[in-house]
Amino acid sequence: MKRPIVTVDGNEAASYVAHKLSEVIAIYPITPSSTMGENADDWSAEGRTNIWGTIPEVVEMQSEAGAAAACHGAIQAGALTTTFTASQGLLLMLPTMYKVAGELSCGVIHVSARTVATHALSIFGDHSDVMGARQTGFVLLNSASVQEAHDLAAVAHAATLTCRLPFLHFFDGFRTSSEVAKIELLTDEDLRAMLDEEALAAHRARAMDPERPVLRGTAQNPDVFFQAREASNPFFLAVPGKVQEAMDRFGALVGRRYHLFDYVGAPDADRVIVMMGSAIGAAEETVRTLLAAGEKVGLLKVRLYRPFDAAAFLKALPATAGRVAVLDRTKEPGAVGDPLYQDVLTVLAQAAMAGTLPGESLPRVIAGRYGLSSKEFTPAMAKAVFDQLAAPEPRASFTIGIEDDVTHLSLDYDRNWHPDGEREVRALFFGLGSDGTVGANKNSVKIIGENTPMFAQGYFVYDSKKSGQTTVSHVRFGPDRIEGSYLIERAGFIACHDFGLLEKVDVLAQAEQGATFLLNSPYSKDEVWERLPVEVQRQIIDRNLKLYIVDGYGVAEAAGLGRRVNTVLQTCFFALAGVLPVEQAVDEIKTAIKKTYGRRGETVLQRNYAAVDASLAALEQVEVPGEVRGEVHRHTPVPADAPEFVRTVTAEIIAGRGDLLPVSAFPPDGTFPTGTTQYEKRSIALEIPIWDADICIDCARCALVCPHAAIRIKYYDPAVLDQAPAGFPS
Amino acid sequence: MKRPIVTVDGNEAASYVAHKLSEVIAIYPITPSSTMGENADDWSAEGRTNIWGTIPEVVEMQSEAGAAAACHGAIQAGALTTTFTASQGLLLMLPTMYKVAGELSCGVIHVSARTVATHALSIFGDHSDVMGARQTGFVLLNSASVQEAHDLAAVAHAATLTCRLPFLHFFDGFRTSSEVAKIELLTDEDLRAMLDEEALAAHRARAMDPERPVLRGTAQNPDVFFQAREASNPFFLAVPGKVQEAMDRFGALVGRRYHLFDYVGAPDADRVIVMMGSAIGAAEETVRTLLAAGEKVGLLKVRLYRPFDAAAFLKALPATAGRVAVLDRTKEPGAVGDPLYQDVLTVLAQAAMAGTLPGESLPRVIAGRYGLSSKEFTPAMAKAVFDQLAAPEPRASFTIGIEDDVTHLSLDYDRNWHPDGEREVRALFFGLGSDGTVGANKNSVKIIGENTPMFAQGYFVYDSKKSGQTTVSHVRFGPDRIEGSYLIERAGFIACHDFGLLEKVDVLAQAEQGATFLLNSPYSKDEVWERLPVEVQRQIIDRNLKLYIVDGYGVAEAAGLGRRVNTVLQTCFFALAGVLPVEQAVDEIKTAIKKTYGRRGETVLQRNYAAVDASLAALEQVEVPGEVRGEVHRHTPVPADAPEFVRTVTAEIIAGRGDLLPVSAFPPDGTFPTGTTQYEKRSIALEIPIWDADICIDCARCALVCPHAAIRIKYYDPAVLDQAPAGFPS
Repeated sequence: MKRPIVTVDGNEAASYVAHKLSEVIAIYPITPSSTMGENADDWSAEGRTNIWGTIPEVVEMQSEAGAAAACHGAIQAGALTTTFTASQGLLLMLPTMYKVAGELSCGVIHVSARTVATHALSIFGDHSDVMGARQTGFVLLNSASVQEAHDLAAVAHAATLTCRLPFLHFFDGFRTSSEVAKIELLTDEDLRAMLDEEALAAHRARAMDPERPVLRGTAQNPDVFFQAREASNPFFLAVPGKVQEAMDRFGALVGRRYHLFDYVGAPDADRVIVMMGSAIGAAEETVRTLLAAGEKVGLLKVRLYRPFDAAAFLKALPATAGRVAVLDRTKEPGAVGDPLYQDVLTVLAQAAMAGTLPGESLPRVIAGRYGLSSKEFTPAMAKAVFDQLAAPEPRASFTIGIEDDVTHLSLDYDRNWHPDGEREVRALFFGLGSDGTVGANKNSVKIIGENTPMFAQGYFVYDSKKSGQTTVSHVRFGPDRIEGSYLIERAGFIACHDFGLLEKVDVLAQAEQGATFLLNSPYSKDEVWERLPVEVQRQIIDRNLKLYIVDGYGVAEAAGLGRRVNTVLQTCFFALAGVLPVEQAVDEIKTAIKKTYGRRGETVLQRNYAAVDASLAALEQVEVPGEVRGEVHRHTPVPADAPEFVRTVTAEIIAGRGDLLPVSAFPPDGTFPTGTTQYEKRSIALEIPIWDADICIDCARCALVCPHAAIRIKYYDPAVLDQAPAGFPS
Repeated sequence: MKRPIVTVDGNEAASYVAHKLSEVIAIYPITPSSTMGENADDWSAEGRTNIWGTIPEVVEMQSEAGAAAACHGAIQAGALTTTFTASQGLLLMLPTMYKVAGELSCGVIHVSARTVATHALSIFGDHSDVMGARQTGFVLLNSASVQEAHDLAAVAHAATLTCRLPFLHFFDGFRTSSEVAKIELLTDEDLRAMLDEEALAAHRARAMDPERPVLRGTAQNPDVFFQAREASNPFFLAVPGKVQEAMDRFGALVGRRYHLFDYVGAPDADRVIVMMGSAIGAAEETVRTLLAAGEKVGLLKVRLYRPFDAAAFLKALPATAGRVAVLDRTKEPGAVGDPLYQDVLTVLAQAAMAGTLPGESLPRVIAGRYGLSSKEFTPAMAKAVFDQLAAPEPRASFTIGIEDDVTHLSLDYDRNWHPDGEREVRALFFGLGSDGTVGANKNSVKIIGENTPMFAQGYFVYDSKKSGQTTVSHVRFGPDRIEGSYLIERAGFIACHDFGLLEKVDVLAQAEQGATFLLNSPYSKDEVWERLPVEVQRQIIDRNLKLYIVDGYGVAEAAGLGRRVNTVLQTCFFALAGVLPVEQAVDEIKTAIKKTYGRRGETVLQRNYAAVDASLAALEQVEVPGEVRGEVHRHTPVPADAPEFVRTVTAEIIAGRGDLLPVSAFPPDGTFPTGTTQYEKRSIALEIPIWDADICIDCARCALVCPHAAIRIKYYDPAVLDQAPAGFPS
């Protein structure tokens, strides 16, 4: 059976399965889970059916509390039920979750794990939301990649029926939910084969039904509640076995094998990292590189987090592992350790007391915290953790990925250490929000993923300023499955889709020696060099970059596309990257254009086609001079006379160097000074409104519509104008 | 300085301090915390002021989510702020709690800890709600008794200011929140002296103020969130020291000394129990008894649960403690251990790895779960835990207090084992809901507590059927502070305020040899014996009880009080108990009557006074015959032809033997059969409505008003009556 190969993000991968295996889907949007609900809603609106041929009923509630309650009701009616959420949305579901689990109900919540707001809100990813639900009785199953979000979604929907317990299937917000990757899609037959028909029938038979009335939701008193609560123990004890059964069934069907805990590394490793979530990808690259260098290291991936199966964990951990680092992507202030660490240490200490340790004595277990709010976790950080494990006296607990100059918890790491992975191509694309760069890159990933045997991955970084922001597209492709679950640190190809960005952003910071640099330039190849900021020239010379330019705006305008340069630069990328024969790439781009713009009519299509064809002709290589010339410099992000906080903190954030700010830079309670936006000159407006007294009819709309208040209205008595200077317009 | 001695429940003890030390109090009612909010509301309505002479503003919100948000806002406005909640109410506050803690805010939530609803709802107490909030960043401080709920409330309100972190001060729902006990009341001067003026001024200075604008509630991105989150570490690290400072300040002022962890027991104990909450009282009685018998045992009380201070814990634990049992009053299904156990084991394992253990090697740590939903925790159970610790191979984890015949986790315990405590008097009073028994007993506890040097305690057990239910008042008094935090198991005095109860409830089950039994009897001392169920007669003879009767209904009616027998029986209790000279007791009862009924006018007062005076005359001792006589038997709770579930489960619950039902008796998902109420004949109605066709005007109100549907209306065509039997009324 041939399964379709698709290029989708984690949210689509999970919600695809959810929609196929559900009858009632209650939704409420919250970043980064929203697209799961939107997908389900769209698909049902389009008439897409689940594997039984019925269209799932999608209902949007007034909040996540309502969505959870709607699921509770649907479950009691015997429906196959799911919902999607994250962060505070998950917290609002908690009261209902305790009940749904206590009632031994079947259902799945898919969570794109996101930071819970504390000193500041963050829409990005960590495990603080899921960890806030670990005591509810839900089964917690983690996926660490887009393919896993697809596969383990199927395991969750299957195992909830056999376990008779609700599942919370989670994966990292943004890094997995929004990463676009090439995956193998499960077929309806696969999904059907995953379900246990008997367990499904039993779920339906437990539906509330006036023909077979039962009483649920009683109130119990001290005399009996405790006993009744313990009566559910057998169901929780059976979960690990039943989840493994579902994983085994999946493996037999599809070929990808999963276990409650999956170990990779040396069978006789002396140092092991235990973790879950997308950062596993980065850690795995490090393990492979260190293994190749003969180091005895390993990585233990946690998939089933609750119930935590001590026996399976001890079996998966090499008996030789004398040093273990447990990495948590959450922070629980005041606890003696973050949750995964405490669980692992508890299991090992229990085994030590019971004499069932895999090794001879209690391993040294140390605790690391990483990746809060989608802070990067890179192979270099994993390397630093392994180094720490090798220290004579390893730190008992640490953070990794930041510089903590306050409580000095952070480990140093070598930013220049990189894992082996030379067969993979890494490309970075800098664009402006709404300029089409991200869309074109998603499309390129799709073209590579679906038209070549290569694996491809795209991840897209925005700042929070929406339209007009800087966007960076991180694209990887290569012959092997791509594990890199972190931003690209060394790129062989860099494209800058807007010339102006060169003055604001360090576009070439990640350029490797000899990399290709594609620049959208309004200047010809003869004059462009001196227009480049001298810092950029220096980088090009020092790193021996190959510089290509294309007048994207010129080509687009000539083709009648205004300022939409995305197609032009996409075509040039394929021309330079050599991943596909140029002709085939052009065909695929045109096919994609037809898909995207087909509805807008033949004229638009022809204009885009013309732009594609003209792009290749306009692409030129620039002879790189041996020396720096010209007067253009990269801007400083804020004026020199800005207040100190703005210069030392805000400016670094604006410049994209926020990651380098140490802990001491930040007010501990999230309180910031006001009035700081005045120092950020974003310079993204192509036009600025100027009041023209001659044509003004006093309608005041100019002041009303401009979100930036570029024109402001003041009312005053005309009499006071007598003293006004001559040049004062009114 | 003389401090007032008062007899109050835990809710009043805590809310008294909260009202004295707050300016804004946001409330939303939920059992068992409601009276805290009601108290605050009443007190402010009465014009009672806080220690600064202003009346706290009490605002009731639409839900606990709103109450938390109102607190958040008030804190940001620089107010001293508090709220009260429990269970699902606390869960609704979670999203706001993360923010309030993340912003390093000062404020206190007082929680009367209550079970979170799972397979069934329960209004009773355990720590599942508080444990669901342990990851929020709130400081968690536990009180184990009514006096502590008062004292540590003051510590919480003081330390939140010095710590710059919000406090969750909690104590056990019902057992502490509703236990009436004699405590020493803190004065305004005490409370004022507890507060650090500088910290208070700093809190006010952090208020949002347009004169000094700041930005709070920002959104942060991956570049900076993690560092900013770690910036708060110093505040959490400082909490243990600052809480101990507040406790020390309290100790110096008031004399009662508290520590983050308080140890009682042998300095060289080999076996130690670690726990928190009201069950400490029961465990402490066991420790004292075992110590007196020469056993090397100890009890470590946890007061500051978050942040959990590892160093203070290790210092408090005797180095000799080779065996440690950690008892949790919550259940987290799927976890490798419940939370307090995991924390203790983590701290010990960390110390073992770091070489800082108090003893030579890692103690054997075992985990026990007890007391869910206010399940009793008795000294006998604590004894069983110590016995288990002494076993050659102690169980790694267990439950205590139930019989688990499903997963066999439960420990056996000897129900007949009791701690020493002979100087304390224990009395039980059986009444009917709304008959005034509970009120009279609260009043008696107050009279003893406030008019004698004795300590007194009252705890009141209701079933959930409100009016007409059985109530049992558990009253202890004696020369020493009363630690018994469990229902009375052996009583020297038992009163039955309703003769009919003898047929339904095993009133004398707890009667000690030679105890006094006071019975409200409509039968004279000559005829009463044969009216007693033969089972009761047997108990009276076997246990050599002294039997007293009073015709409470007769005396009350003669005094014009209808069926309100509470005053009559209260007077007889004092006459028999000998705790006060009878004349003084009579005076105090009359004073209490004046307080309670004064507003209803002189006639009511005189009737009550008359009842008091007549009671003593009506009190008679019954000569107990040596043999059982008569035909009256205690009822079986349900008919013999009831369905099996009703006979084996429902009937046991009705009979008050639900505690003895094993785990296997219960459906694991909380699903019960319907239609079972028909088998419970409560027989509490004194009158039953009968339809009288002669006076019926078809108004239908009889059917509308009766909550029991004793009269039902059916409409049918008069024509069908042709065939009706002669006796069919219509």
